[in-house]
Amino acid sequence: MESQELVQHLEARAAFRADKMAKVDCYRSAHLLVGLNCFESGQSQAVHAHAGADKFYLVLSGKANFVVGERTVTAGPGDLIVAPADVPHGVTRAETRTVVLVTMAPAP
Amino acid sequence: MESQELVQHLEARAAFRADKMAKVDCYRSAHLLVGLNCFESGQSQAVHAHAGADKFYLVLSGKANFVVGERTVTAGPGDLIVAPADVPHGVTRAETRTVVLVTMAPAP
Repeated sequence: MESQELVQHLEARAAFRADKMAKVDCYRSAHLLVGLNCFESGQSQAVHAHAGADKFYLVLSGKANFVVGERTVTAGPGDLIVAPADVPHGVTRAETRTVVLVTMAPAP
Repeated sequence: MESQELVQHLEARAAFRADKMAKVDCYRSAHLLVGLNCFESGQSQAVHAHAGADKFYLVLSGKANFVVGERTVTAGPGDLIVAPADVPHGVTRAETRTVVLVTMAPAP
């Protein structure tokens, strides 16, 4: 990643797929994975868990329904949602086109 | 952090100080520190480095001048700036009131 631009404008990095949520990697090291999860309206991310790795979602644009453990929430731009290591989490439905910054530490 | 709200709206978490940049912790574990750096216009963050920990800045609002290694850049909302482990970095000047999401992995 040494040759990447110093700044990445995240809105310009977003990419979408008609068939499912799209992932975009922005930075990856041993300690850290930073990327985008890009949802068209109605798309989802199955509930899953990461052994030993903490994760957070930050909604950049749009609106989506998240689940973490037993809790669910609808979140929009500027909302931060943490899924601690080993806690099941996912996105049950994007209510509109939605872009989410995702960070995992350590990287998977 | 188990008792915290599932969602944190970052704009509402921002806090400022007249004398220097203010820091707000949003989540901390062994793997990960997530917080805000909140600058009034003209405030700065001295150049520093984190041994063995990767860091990124994501500008949430405002406009500021960043330095990473030998490179400098002016960044605004939605701009992601990565400072890999051991690389000196800082904020030379906020051009207006500016809120930056900061993530470090592992946490200091």
